[in-house]
Amino acid sequence: MPEMHPDSQHIIEENREFTMFSWSVQNQANPIHMTGGKGSHFFDGSGNAWLDMASQLVSINVGHQHPKILQAIKDQVDTMCFAGPGFATDVRAELGRKLSEVTGLAKSFFTLGGSEANENAMKMARLYTGRPKIITRYRSYHGATMGSMTASGDPRRWPVEPGVPGIVRVFDPYMYRPPLGMTAEQWEEGCISHIEEVIQMEGPHTIAAIMVEGITGSNGVLVPPDSYYPRLRALCDKYSILLITDEVMSGFGRTGTWLATQHYGIKPDIVTCAKGLTSGYMPLGAVIVNDKIADYFETHFLAGGLTYSGHPVSLAAAIANIKVYEEENIFEHVRELGVHLGQRLEAMKRKFACVGDVRYIGLFSVLELVKDKATKEPLAPFNGTSPEMGKLAAHLKSKHIYAMLRFNWAFVCPPLVITKEELDHGLDMYEEALALVDQMILGPVAAD
Amino acid sequence: MPEMHPDSQHIIEENREFTMFSWSVQNQANPIHMTGGKGSHFFDGSGNAWLDMASQLVSINVGHQHPKILQAIKDQVDTMCFAGPGFATDVRAELGRKLSEVTGLAKSFFTLGGSEANENAMKMARLYTGRPKIITRYRSYHGATMGSMTASGDPRRWPVEPGVPGIVRVFDPYMYRPPLGMTAEQWEEGCISHIEEVIQMEGPHTIAAIMVEGITGSNGVLVPPDSYYPRLRALCDKYSILLITDEVMSGFGRTGTWLATQHYGIKPDIVTCAKGLTSGYMPLGAVIVNDKIADYFETHFLAGGLTYSGHPVSLAAAIANIKVYEEENIFEHVRELGVHLGQRLEAMKRKFACVGDVRYIGLFSVLELVKDKATKEPLAPFNGTSPEMGKLAAHLKSKHIYAMLRFNWAFVCPPLVITKEELDHGLDMYEEALALVDQMILGPVAAD
Ligand SMILES: Cc1ncc(COP(=O)(O)O)c(C=O)c1O
Ligand SMILES: Cc1ncc(COP(=O)(O)O)c(C=O)c1O
Repeated sequence: MPEMHPDSQHIIEENREFTMFSWSVQNQANPIHMTGGKGSHFFDGSGNAWLDMASQLVSINVGHQHPKILQAIKDQVDTMCFAGPGFATDVRAELGRKLSEVTGLAKSFFTLGGSEANENAMKMARLYTGRPKIITRYRSYHGATMGSMTASGDPRRWPVEPGVPGIVRVFDPYMYRPPLGMTAEQWEEGCISHIEEVIQMEGPHTIAAIMVEGITGSNGVLVPPDSYYPRLRALCDKYSILLITDEVMSGFGRTGTWLATQHYGIKPDIVTCAKGLTSGYMPLGAVIVNDKIADYFETHFLAGGLTYSGHPVSLAAAIANIKVYEEENIFEHVRELGVHLGQRLEAMKRKFACVGDVRYIGLFSVLELVKDKATKEPLAPFNGTSPEMGKLAAHLKSKHIYAMLRFNWAFVCPPLVITKEELDHGLDMYEEALALVDQMILGPVAAD
Repeated sequence: MPEMHPDSQHIIEENREFTMFSWSVQNQANPIHMTGGKGSHFFDGSGNAWLDMASQLVSINVGHQHPKILQAIKDQVDTMCFAGPGFATDVRAELGRKLSEVTGLAKSFFTLGGSEANENAMKMARLYTGRPKIITRYRSYHGATMGSMTASGDPRRWPVEPGVPGIVRVFDPYMYRPPLGMTAEQWEEGCISHIEEVIQMEGPHTIAAIMVEGITGSNGVLVPPDSYYPRLRALCDKYSILLITDEVMSGFGRTGTWLATQHYGIKPDIVTCAKGLTSGYMPLGAVIVNDKIADYFETHFLAGGLTYSGHPVSLAAAIANIKVYEEENIFEHVRELGVHLGQRLEAMKRKFACVGDVRYIGLFSVLELVKDKATKEPLAPFNGTSPEMGKLAAHLKSKHIYAMLRFNWAFVCPPLVITKEELDHGLDMYEEALALVDQMILGPVAAD
C-alpha cells in the first residue's frame, strides 16, 4: 500500500543529477518517484496510488507485483541466477517449448527487449532469403538500435539518420487518415495494392521480408481492416517474401490472444515479442521462427548473439507470466472487458467534439483527438504537442491517472487484470479531461 | 553442490529443438546443461563441477551464486519489480551516483547489455558534436545490433554488411603482429600516428568520436603499450574528437580497476559498460558521460531509449555487485593474483613451442598459439579453427575446465574471486592441453 517516502524530493533530484531519461530533453524530465505497486496501481513517494492506464509503456500486462511471478523469479535466482548464452537450461527448454505451442512456430531465439528481437529477425530474414531489403511501414516503431530504428517509420529515427541501407517504407492501414485524400473504402483496397506496387518497383527478388507491427501501437493503435492480413499473407506468398510481425506491444494478451494476427487467421513466418512476454518483470525479448527458417539455421551460421541471450531469470519470469495468463483466464477477461471498453470509447466519440476517432481491440486502444471533427484537424501536430494536449495531460495527472499521450493521441492500455470498476473510473477521468479540451476548442459555450 | 539431473539429456534435446544458439550453426551446437554453480564453479546435469575459466563470456566476475547479490535481487523484487524508463526510483539514484563516483564522469544512461550501450554512446557522440563519423578499430567487438555490429571490426560483422554509414576503421595496438611487417618498436610509435593520418584523410571536423575497447577482449586481449592511451587522449583533444571507451569486458574489476583506462591515467569522455557491472546476475548496460555531454542533453533531445532502461532489479543487482567488489576487496585480489597469473603465463610461453605470445592484465589474459614461434604462423587461421585447437578444446573439456577459445587464442579469464589453488589447477590443465598440442606440431619427439 502507498506510503510516504522519507526523502522523495531528494531521490528525484539525484535521478536527474546522475541519470539520463529516454527520449527527453533532460531539464524537462519531470519523473514521478515510483516506490511500489499492486495490480492496476503503482505508488509514488508522496503516498499516492496511481491508476496505471498505460501499463508502463504497455508492458506490465498482469499488473504490478503479481505474487506468482515474484516467487518464480526468486526461486530461479536461488537455483541458478545466470548461465551464458551457450548453455542448455531447464527454463530455456520449457519456455522454448511453450512459445512454440502458443504461436504455432518452431524455435525461439532470446534477446532482452524488442529492439534486439527485431534486429535479429531482420538478420535472419536476410540470411535465410539471401535478399537485402526489408519493407516496413511509416507509422511504426520497432526499437532504437540502429537496425530497428531504421526499420521504424516513426520520427524518433530522424535525429539519427542515415540508418541501415535496405529499408523501404510503405503506407499504413490508417483508415481514419488514408493517404492522397482517399476514402476509407478506396484505401481498404489500396493499402495492399500499394505494397504490391512498391514490391514491383523494388524488385520482388530483392525483398527479404515485410515487417509490420502485429497491430501498430505507439503510432496510434491502427487496427487494420479484416481483409488486411489475409491479403498481406497472400502477397508475401506470391513473391516468396517473409512476413515478420512485431508483436512486442500487441502480443501476449494485449488484444486477447497470444498474437494479434490470430484474430485474422493467418500465421507469420517470424514473430518478435518482448514487453507482455514477461509483463516487464524481467527484460526479455524473443524471435520465434517457422520450421523452414529453423531448418535453414540447422546447417547455416546464425550471425547474431548477445551475452544475455537466454538469461535464466528472464526465462523463469516469462514462464510464470504465461502461467498466470492461462491459470487466471486473463485473455478471456481482456476480450470481455474489451467489449465494454469499446462501447465506452464509442460513447466518448459521440459525446465530445474533440474525439475524432476511437480504435480498440482487447485492452489496446486510443482516442484520436481533433480540433474539428469535420476537417479532422489534429489536436496537436504530427510529432508535436499543443496547449489542449497539455491540459489533458495535466488533468489526468492531477487525478493520479497515469496515461500515455503522444501527438494527438490519448491511449488507453491498462493492465490486463484491471477490473471493470477501475477501468470505468479511469475512463471517467479521461471524460473529465476531454470536457476541458472541448471547452478550449469550442470556446465558453459549454459552461458546465 | 553438483547433483545428477533426472532428465538432463532430454533438457538438452529440448533446448536444441525449441531454441536457437548465438553465433552458431545450430546442428553443431553442443550445449552443456547447466544446473547451478558456486564461486568459480558451475554444475552440469551429470553431476560434474566445471571450473569456469571464462566467467561465462567474461561476465560473472564475483563468481556463481554470490549470496549477497541474490539477496539484493530478491529484496528488490519484493519491493518493486518493475518501473518504466520515465520514473525516478531509489535504486536509479543510488547506482547513478555510484557510477559517477567510480568513473569520475557525470551521468549514466541505462541499457540492458553492451550492444545497446554502444549504440547509445555513438548516438550521443553524433548528436553532441554534430559530426557523422566514428573511428573504431579492426580487432574489436562492440555488440551485435546494427550500429554496434558495424562499429565492430570483428568478422562477426561480415554476414550482415553493409551496415551503418560513417564507421571508419583503424589498426590496433597488436604489438605481437604489427601491420605492414613493422617491428613492435616502429608500431608503438605508428599505432597512434596511423590514426592521426586517417583523421587527416577523413577530415577532423567530420569525426564525432574514436571508440575503442578499454582493453580489446574477444579479439585477443590486446594490452596496449603504456604510451598508447595518453597519446590517444591527446590526439582526441587536438581535434575535439570524443574518446569513447567500451569497458563492457575490460571494466569493473577485470583488470583490477573500475576502468582499464585508469591504469594509464587518462579519462574518456564516454564510457560504456555491461557484463561486470552486474556480474551477469541481471542484464544491465550503461553509458556514462562527462559533464559537458550531460550538460548538452540538459537542453537538447536525447534521441534514444528502451522499455527496460533503468529496470529496478537490474539496478539493484549492480548496486549489490559493486558493494561486493568493495567490501571483499576484490580488485586488490585481482591485482595480486594477476601478478601470479602473469608469471605462470610467461613460464608457459617459455615451456611450450605452441605458445607464441601471452598477454595479461589483472585476470584478463590470453595465450596466443602458433605452429612455429619463429614464423608466428597461427595455430588456427584468422576466423577459423584447426585440429590442434580442437585437441586443446577437447582436453580442457574432458577435465571439466570451461575455457573460451577463439581462432588461435586460449583465453584465461576466471571469476575475480578465484583462489590461487583453483587458478593453479586450471592452468595446470591448460598446460596438459598445450603439451598435447606441442606433440601435434613437433611430431612424436616428446613422447612423454
Ligand atoms: C512495437 C514495438 N516494437 C519494438 C519496441 C522496442 O522494444 P524495446 O523498447 O524493448 O527495445 C517497442 C517499444 O515500445 C514497440 O512498441
Ligand atoms: C567489448 C564488448 N563490447 C560489447 C559487447 C556486447 O555486449 P552484449 O553481448 O551484452 O550486447 C561485448 C560482448 O561480448 C564486448 O565484449
